[in-house]
Amino acid sequence: MFSTQTYIERRNALKRHVGSGLILIMGNEEAPMNYHDNTYRYRQDSNFLYYFGISLANLAAVIDVDSGEEIIFGDEFSMDDIIWVGPQPTLADQARKVGVYRTEAYAKLADKLAKAKKVHFTPPYRYENKFKLSEWLSIPVNQLKEKASVDLIHAIIAQRAYKSAEEIVQMEEAVNICREMHIAAMRETKAGRKEYEIAAIIHGKALEFGGELAYPIIFSVNGQTLHNHYHGNTMTEGRLALNDSGAENSMFYAGDITRTIPVSKKFTEKQKDIYNIVLKMQLASIEALKPGIQYKEVHLLANRVLLEGLSDLGFVKGNVDEMLNEGVQGLFMPHGLGHAIGLDVHDMEDLGENYVGYRDGLERSTQLGLKSLRMAKELEEGYVITVEPGLYFIPELIDKWKSEKKFTDFINYEKLETYRDFGGVRIEDNCLITADGQKTLGKPIPKTIEEVEDLKN
Amino acid sequence: MFSTQTYIERRNALKRHVGSGLILIMGNEEAPMNYHDNTYRYRQDSNFLYYFGISLANLAAVIDVDSGEEIIFGDEFSMDDIIWVGPQPTLADQARKVGVYRTEAYAKLADKLAKAKKVHFTPPYRYENKFKLSEWLSIPVNQLKEKASVDLIHAIIAQRAYKSAEEIVQMEEAVNICREMHIAAMRETKAGRKEYEIAAIIHGKALEFGGELAYPIIFSVNGQTLHNHYHGNTMTEGRLALNDSGAENSMFYAGDITRTIPVSKKFTEKQKDIYNIVLKMQLASIEALKPGIQYKEVHLLANRVLLEGLSDLGFVKGNVDEMLNEGVQGLFMPHGLGHAIGLDVHDMEDLGENYVGYRDGLERSTQLGLKSLRMAKELEEGYVITVEPGLYFIPELIDKWKSEKKFTDFINYEKLETYRDFGGVRIEDNCLITADGQKTLGKPIPKTIEEVEDLKN
Repeated sequence: MFSTQTYIERRNALKRHVGSGLILIMGNEEAPMNYHDNTYRYRQDSNFLYYFGISLANLAAVIDVDSGEEIIFGDEFSMDDIIWVGPQPTLADQARKVGVYRTEAYAKLADKLAKAKKVHFTPPYRYENKFKLSEWLSIPVNQLKEKASVDLIHAIIAQRAYKSAEEIVQMEEAVNICREMHIAAMRETKAGRKEYEIAAIIHGKALEFGGELAYPIIFSVNGQTLHNHYHGNTMTEGRLALNDSGAENSMFYAGDITRTIPVSKKFTEKQKDIYNIVLKMQLASIEALKPGIQYKEVHLLANRVLLEGLSDLGFVKGNVDEMLNEGVQGLFMPHGLGHAIGLDVHDMEDLGENYVGYRDGLERSTQLGLKSLRMAKELEEGYVITVEPGLYFIPELIDKWKSEKKFTDFINYEKLETYRDFGGVRIEDNCLITADGQKTLGKPIPKTIEEVEDLKN
Repeated sequence: MFSTQTYIERRNALKRHVGSGLILIMGNEEAPMNYHDNTYRYRQDSNFLYYFGISLANLAAVIDVDSGEEIIFGDEFSMDDIIWVGPQPTLADQARKVGVYRTEAYAKLADKLAKAKKVHFTPPYRYENKFKLSEWLSIPVNQLKEKASVDLIHAIIAQRAYKSAEEIVQMEEAVNICREMHIAAMRETKAGRKEYEIAAIIHGKALEFGGELAYPIIFSVNGQTLHNHYHGNTMTEGRLALNDSGAENSMFYAGDITRTIPVSKKFTEKQKDIYNIVLKMQLASIEALKPGIQYKEVHLLANRVLLEGLSDLGFVKGNVDEMLNEGVQGLFMPHGLGHAIGLDVHDMEDLGENYVGYRDGLERSTQLGLKSLRMAKELEEGYVITVEPGLYFIPELIDKWKSEKKFTDFINYEKLETYRDFGGVRIEDNCLITADGQKTLGKPIPKTIEEVEDLKN
């Protein structure tokens, strides 16, 4: 937990930003897996963590902007609870640690909300909170998103988007746990092993270093499938394995790292060519980071490097500017260059991606690739973003475009045929925007061909 | 997946048991963690797995008992989905594998239900399904539990309670994964290590052997806290570590195993005395298992062994029958001897614990310990149950009883004072009731003092 003062200051800034009304911050309940009492690991809501710091189920908090009053609603433990879950600090004690001096029974919250003139709430993403908000505020569940407070959303983003020095310490720690996960995966990846064995090692490293997974592991020889959570393949010589896995540390800050590893001890020449295009894309992108630059421009810069590299190898031909404008690169990198990261791996995603990554006058593109760019606007000092270019050979997408005769002037579909089983490459780091550039978080994680191969011997 | 015929037969038996009406089996959605798209690992509902076998989000199925018609409702993947999650078999193909030859868009389900005279559903435990059922069936959320179909609940229990030979193969596999988890924990437990490091190894073993956790790991030097999910302690010489952890295998069958390990290389004499009482309780309980015996009687048998052992050591004195009747043992073992296990670690718990473990004429006791006994009724061939006696020294509970002067004639509170930091011991295996006794599932897991100590050297 951060200092009491940190939480008080965060809430004071929130009050100033929102101006008036009652701010409601919902905590998360336990999440049932296959029956009510068999739950997934508990994860508190990130806004609740940011403003109230307590990682405990069944809490909610209000901030009365007009009176300044702050209350955490929740129920104290019973003797029965203590037998089953052990002695617990009281809620009042925990609240004091974050500078909140009033706690009330959870059942009293509905009444508090009923009496408020204006309740500011964020869009709920868990059904339990949808249900409660709907009941308490008499808003149909399917209207909750549109009735959420835009003022509150903007106010939260205006704080959480800028990472403080003490947050950066946590984020470096998260990336350093990722580093252990990725180095172990590089060492253990070899022909004959199952993907899930390596996924087990990756997950085990996160836990061993006091973290947890920030998001489900992607570890697959089918790296061309962007969100592949299947781990059943046996790895074979000559394939690539894509490892997109990250930890959240004990303070719930996320790291999001991707590396691509040869299953064999060395990359093949064919793999090196593709890998080095992606590495060049990533290094050029990181080099370009600084306050004021539009991240959409960095995305396009990465895609320019991509098209130039593909052109050199004969996958595409023609004018690079024209291809970039038309969106030829979508076939090879159908996702965005990166996103904000913090307490959430896609930071504040459910407050609204466009609020986090876009602004008035900067509309989201509909082009394949760009349409999935989560962060597009001008970068500012204190932002932490992922830089994660990739290059994939997706047979289903190649077949679709080919059958539609899409960009036949630019794309060498014949050559693509020989890469159908190549897979994909992605390289990802997490970067803090500094006054004059960027700082890549955490200790360096092997990234060049030589560094990765070194770990395999 | 089991054979097509298995699923067809299960559904046919269900139809016979329920008699008439429309049976609705809800699948589970993805469960959001800290925002909508960042989800916990997917776990399908166990009834859905049992009757329809498909582990995929956003499905529901109906069985029209009167016409015999069976339909799975769900939506096919789009091209966009395939880029992100890879090529998928069609829902129709997957349905065919479980003998269902009709699939419909999910949006058509509401209409199907609206037209039915009688809809049988089970009590929903996930908010998404509560919300949907409430909408579709016009039942307030807080009335869904009481409006659930008792006929359907009884019919499901009448099937799932009896494990078939092919289910037992799966359950043995689950226990064998547990065995790897427990042996690793015994080997790695030593002074100076953090509990979470061992928890990480346990979780890693589950994954390495193709499983997942069936329930959150309990690994703690504070074994006296029954459901202790805190893993932050550093282990020290002379303590005990209680490890209650189990895997579900790739077919989602659960194992639930507990062992208690000395942090030092050897148990102390004090620990051996307590440990051997619990071991004796467990062996006597397992020895007593056979069709026809009431599990409540086995629970009381275990508690008799407990009181006799405690009497020998001078913790209690007086007539054992009298103590047993009065509930003195509740101080030392405030939980039940065991529960049904299968696709759920507490099998079918949300269908209603009393439906699963009790019957007409056999009421649940209110005595501490017995009131938490989940399985009480006569055992039958094909049941699989856990046998998990324990003996704990719970300071908060000791203090409470002492201050209430409870059972001062029986309990030697003075001696108890010297065991306040002892912790607790539990030993648990999973047993199949056979025609003439029981079979403990899986390869043997070290259990005697000698066997456990052997692994620590």
